Amino acid sequence: MDRRIREHAETLVDWSARIESGEDVVLSVAEGAHDLAVAVAEALGERGANVVTTYASEEISRAYLHAHEDDFETPEHELALYEHADSVLFLGGGRNTFATADVDGEIRQAAARAKQPIKEARMGTDWVSTVHPTRSLAQQAGMSYEAYQDFVYDAILRDWESLAEEMAQLKEILDDGSEVRLVSERTDLRMSIEGRIAVNSAASVAYDSHNLPSGEVFTAPAETEGEVVFDVPMTISGARVRDVWLRFEGGEVADFSAEAGEETLADLLDTDEGARRLGELGIGMNRGIDRVTDNILFDEKMGDTVHLALGRAYDACLPEGEVGNDSAVHVDLITDVSENSRLEIDGETVQRDGRFRWEDGFESGDR
Amino acid sequence: MDRRIREHAETLVDWSARIESGEDVVLSVAEGAHDLAVAVAEALGERGANVVTTYASEEISRAYLHAHEDDFETPEHELALYEHADSVLFLGGGRNTFATADVDGEIRQAAARAKQPIKEARMGTDWVSTVHPTRSLAQQAGMSYEAYQDFVYDAILRDWESLAEEMAQLKEILDDGSEVRLVSERTDLRMSIEGRIAVNSAASVAYDSHNLPSGEVFTAPAETEGEVVFDVPMTISGARVRDVWLRFEGGEVADFSAEAGEETLADLLDTDEGARRLGELGIGMNRGIDRVTDNILFDEKMGDTVHLALGRAYDACLPEGEVGNDSAVHVDLITDVSENSRLEIDGETVQRDGRFRWEDGFESGDR
Repeated sequence: MDRRIREHAETLVDWSARIESGEDVVLSVAEGAHDLAVAVAEALGERGANVVTTYASEEISRAYLHAHEDDFETPEHELALYEHADSVLFLGGGRNTFATADVDGEIRQAAARAKQPIKEARMGTDWVSTVHPTRSLAQQAGMSYEAYQDFVYDAILRDWESLAEEMAQLKEILDDGSEVRLVSERTDLRMSIEGRIAVNSAASVAYDSHNLPSGEVFTAPAETEGEVVFDVPMTISGARVRDVWLRFEGGEVADFSAEAGEETLADLLDTDEGARRLGELGIGMNRGIDRVTDNILFDEKMGDTVHLALGRAYDACLPEGEVGNDSAVHVDLITDVSENSRLEIDGETVQRDGRFRWEDGFESGDR
Repeated sequence: MDRRIREHAETLVDWSARIESGEDVVLSVAEGAHDLAVAVAEALGERGANVVTTYASEEISRAYLHAHEDDFETPEHELALYEHADSVLFLGGGRNTFATADVDGEIRQAAARAKQPIKEARMGTDWVSTVHPTRSLAQQAGMSYEAYQDFVYDAILRDWESLAEEMAQLKEILDDGSEVRLVSERTDLRMSIEGRIAVNSAASVAYDSHNLPSGEVFTAPAETEGEVVFDVPMTISGARVRDVWLRFEGGEVADFSAEAGEETLADLLDTDEGARRLGELGIGMNRGIDRVTDNILFDEKMGDTVHLALGRAYDACLPEGEVGNDSAVHVDLITDVSENSRLEIDGETVQRDGRFRWEDGFESGDR
């Protein structure tokens, strides 16, 4: 077994999920994640945890959903499983990113509605999502299998403790700040973050962070004004979207365009009222991720990028009693900030051309 | 998809497990059983059942058991899952029949003891075990993959309704009978079946039968006297065993030999007191199974064979209040009855040279 698979498993079990002896763990294994599951089972055995292994096969889901009529119930046995679980480890990594492409959207949504109590029970556990590098994901990323494996492990096998400490500095600045300004060649955007709480997403349940890899600090902005261009290409609802431009007035998208996928963008903005407002400002700080791979788990954490999400805000960013932006969607759009750009908080430059102010090579540019 | 995979799935869901709309089903999928699982999921979707898919990977079990110390607990979440399940469908078919060969026996037993309540909860459901033909099982059978697939589907895709009716005739004779005598070239064995209940094992929970394929009628004998030779080769505890000869006196094995595996046989007989007595007399009636494949799920149901098991008797064969033979083991030994042999019940020949008395070509041989 590749030594890195074992390291991935140990990072997941110890750093991310903090599994302890006697815990009841559900291990969810995608079709292509068998090898990682073997390594995770070994780590869980060593820690003395109890394990139920579920098979998250998209081909099985597709066959079931195709055949089922639209009268789904909440499966009581599945609910009982998750209500009695302490942790859920999702090992992603399929064999075909389009495995469920021909499942009717309404059937999919009806099934998801019936499973909502199960989703809530799962979200009530110490859950973590990660991904095993598969040929299918390499293909999606436009990479060879070998190169993709290197990419994934560079993203996952970080010194998370030290990254968490670095990200804590940015969290503190955001927590104390009132206004964020993002400036680059075609971007000049202002957002209020007054009273909002930033999440130091350090790939561990101990930091309210449920993705491995992670490596971003995010908060919930409001009252957005100005223009922004997202130059990192994305796939949204199956369509390629490139060079999205948005102009905000009074917190809402007042005008927009895109080099590719403009119709998809228009549909997205029309979803509901909240889809025209921002739900998230995230700052990618994982420099192990150095390229776009068309997988949001990785893309949004890429070092030297900033992402803004249209739609729903995360509760973790809102002080008690405050209601954030609400929407059925949450779609991240990403912009490269490694050159000709700066991030200001209350008029002070915190990041310029990808360098944070606590890093060597940072130039504040203040006159 | 091979049409036969879909037929297998439909036989499992409709004939064997009798799944109905709204039932909570656990679908347990071995490493090599993915394709059958897709077909079963489709059938379950059509019936409107609810499904949790678990991954029964022997490589994952091995890794977990290897790493775990001997202090297993009963996983509460797993228990909750099966206590809320109506049916469990076990889709066997691994990728290596020796996948767990290097797991310590004591660790395996300690884990099994901790999981006993889960096993009981599973056995309390409408459970069915079947197998998807894999290359590993073809190899164990000494067959090509293509030929093994034909073999498996010949065994599984039967007219079960008509076989159940045929087997009902033998059940009636056994239920009414007092003494069974098995005679062939080197065999002359008498057993009491007075008051015992035969099971018409027709591969359906409706017949108290939990294997697909099945196709045997079995009961619990007592007071065995005489000699018997088992000429069908077997693997017992990993050892090849051939031409076992047993002599019974007063219901117990008084002498024994084997052409191969005699030590394994001796160890088996020494397990406990019940291991020297018979727990089962079974009559194989599935003529779709026409060869030995070193897999007891198939071998013991082979048409024109009789098997006797050393060890534990099944409760289903015992009238209320009666205690059958008890033992930690239940090991089937099989003998070919297609030539020079007869099965008598209370002095009347019921089967001669593989023909039952209700079949064409049957010669009673009564003088």
